[in-house]
Amino acid sequence: MERRAFIKKAAAGMAVGAIAAPAIAQSNPTINWRLASSFPKSLDTIYGAAEILSKRVAQLTDGKFNIRTFPAGEIVPALQVMDAVQAGTVEIGHSASYYYFGKDATFAFDTSIPFGLTARQQSAWMDQGGGKQLLREFFRDYGIMNFAGGNTGCQMGGWFRKEVNTPEDLSGLKMRVGGFGGRVLQRLGVVPQQIAGGDIYPALEKGTIDAAEWIGPYDDEKLGFNKVAPFYYAPGWWEASAQMSFYVGIKEWEKLPKDYQAALEVATYETHVTMQAMYDARNPGALARLMKNGVKLRSFSKPIMDACYKAAMEVIDEEAAKNPKFKKILDPWRRFKQDQNQWYSVGELPMQNYLISHK
Amino acid sequence: MERRAFIKKAAAGMAVGAIAAPAIAQSNPTINWRLASSFPKSLDTIYGAAEILSKRVAQLTDGKFNIRTFPAGEIVPALQVMDAVQAGTVEIGHSASYYYFGKDATFAFDTSIPFGLTARQQSAWMDQGGGKQLLREFFRDYGIMNFAGGNTGCQMGGWFRKEVNTPEDLSGLKMRVGGFGGRVLQRLGVVPQQIAGGDIYPALEKGTIDAAEWIGPYDDEKLGFNKVAPFYYAPGWWEASAQMSFYVGIKEWEKLPKDYQAALEVATYETHVTMQAMYDARNPGALARLMKNGVKLRSFSKPIMDACYKAAMEVIDEEAAKNPKFKKILDPWRRFKQDQNQWYSVGELPMQNYLISHK
Repeated sequence: MERRAFIKKAAAGMAVGAIAAPAIAQSNPTINWRLASSFPKSLDTIYGAAEILSKRVAQLTDGKFNIRTFPAGEIVPALQVMDAVQAGTVEIGHSASYYYFGKDATFAFDTSIPFGLTARQQSAWMDQGGGKQLLREFFRDYGIMNFAGGNTGCQMGGWFRKEVNTPEDLSGLKMRVGGFGGRVLQRLGVVPQQIAGGDIYPALEKGTIDAAEWIGPYDDEKLGFNKVAPFYYAPGWWEASAQMSFYVGIKEWEKLPKDYQAALEVATYETHVTMQAMYDARNPGALARLMKNGVKLRSFSKPIMDACYKAAMEVIDEEAAKNPKFKKILDPWRRFKQDQNQWYSVGELPMQNYLISHK
Repeated sequence: MERRAFIKKAAAGMAVGAIAAPAIAQSNPTINWRLASSFPKSLDTIYGAAEILSKRVAQLTDGKFNIRTFPAGEIVPALQVMDAVQAGTVEIGHSASYYYFGKDATFAFDTSIPFGLTARQQSAWMDQGGGKQLLREFFRDYGIMNFAGGNTGCQMGGWFRKEVNTPEDLSGLKMRVGGFGGRVLQRLGVVPQQIAGGDIYPALEKGTIDAAEWIGPYDDEKLGFNKVAPFYYAPGWWEASAQMSFYVGIKEWEKLPKDYQAALEVATYETHVTMQAMYDARNPGALARLMKNGVKLRSFSKPIMDACYKAAMEVIDEEAAKNPKFKKILDPWRRFKQDQNQWYSVGELPMQNYLISHK
């Protein structure tokens, strides 16, 4: 810009006083980032969270800090978002870290550990219980800084072509189930498959798999699983909650002006509230529609839950015995979880149970 | 600023490029607001939420939008924060709207209705279930715009000098209990008292009151109630959750530049996550300490819970019959609640109950 013109604009900006902000911020640096999401655009809840982030950050920086969101597969495949951030292919990703469980089981603490924390407990652990610090230390080795950005709440146990009543019924079942849950189920004879969201339906339809877990009624309904597997089980004990996170390349983060960093960080909190709220507000209606369309709702039997719990504790302990990074987080996480459940058993849970008894 | 100096500064700001933001934003308008909190400084959770908001807004606006926080009593008494915002004495308040239940019972929807929504359900209702729109319409008549800003989770049922086992034991009890809960308990013979946090202890000590509810272990411990009333009851059914909100004068809101509005709005989301997380992370330890100091933990008996539930439904229906504003919100709120509890009974709550069984 020519010098005189700049003065003129700046002066104009000053004159209008309280409503001058947009004019002034013109000289803030323009920064363009690309965000790779692990989710398809059709999942407006979970993909939508990244769009909310992008919109808010732009608004807070007068459109100067642009984060363009890309659904799974446009820049990188769904399950390679973390790698893309690590490699610097994209500056930021939105994903579930347990997709990267194969690299290191420690990743799962950022999303969900089988029979782990509820959504609210996960938030408390992350924000005020030391979880963020522990996980950031872990992610640093990947050149990544993590920010909690959404939760689904307790997920469903998935779609089954046939009923499962006993732990024995699980044996030989080919099931789409992510990372940690898969390893636990393997111990009960399940053959776990890691398949991205968009590829589950055809696999279930062809009978390549016998069962598939995805998220919950609202998302599952869109993917149409009910047409090919009528039994819908609860709860998804491998995801008492599932936290999504934004993964930012540390090098890119450090290049940001301080107020852009603040804008990005604070916007992750908004998505954290909004994504959970979207799921909670939309799941009930979706479940009602699914039931009307003949879906058969089932609960995992106590023998199945107990067998899975036992297997989960074994797998967790074995991992801790051989993986010091995992153990370093597991120990304080377990203490936190125990304290939470003790506290929840006093008032929160009796209250919720009482409310449900009057539903 | 002298013209030449301004050019120099502006040019300097441009030269440093990506890290120039603080220098540039100098020409944003400086806006100073005062925030009146309904809570004492000693409650670092709940008063702390307002400080988090203030800090973040300043950071997002390069220190130009200043919200100075004042604890209860410094500008206005704890229970007059809403009035102060309405009158324009302060630009923003942080309070619990059910303190203003005496003006209109409809206020309670913004905090808690007896046997109402859990914290997560309240967030879902507010953010994605139509609650925010309904409440903003109601608050508009008071010249106020509301923003959810924190939740305590399910509160405790309070401190009792003597045990209460049957609904009859409640009769004649003088109890500090806010708004709606008080009116319900009145039906069971309780004499409710509305007393600000700081004044509860002396009243309980002198025996002016027989019982007092406040929040939960972490806050209650600080106020020392255990020294004067040993029986600590759960759950606080009048507060299955209690949402705090920021109340902004609409006239002041409209004077803000758009990006300051965005900064304030997004910062409320952060406090919403952080306040709940602070409570969840700190309550378990506080309860353990209280128990070590001889506090006797009790659960309200089923007959007491049922009598209170029945009385609550009567009071709610009576209010709806005579108060169209209340009824307008109640009807959709009830449908939302029913759907939520139906959905929670499928997976979320069975999962939580299973986790607790292994605590």
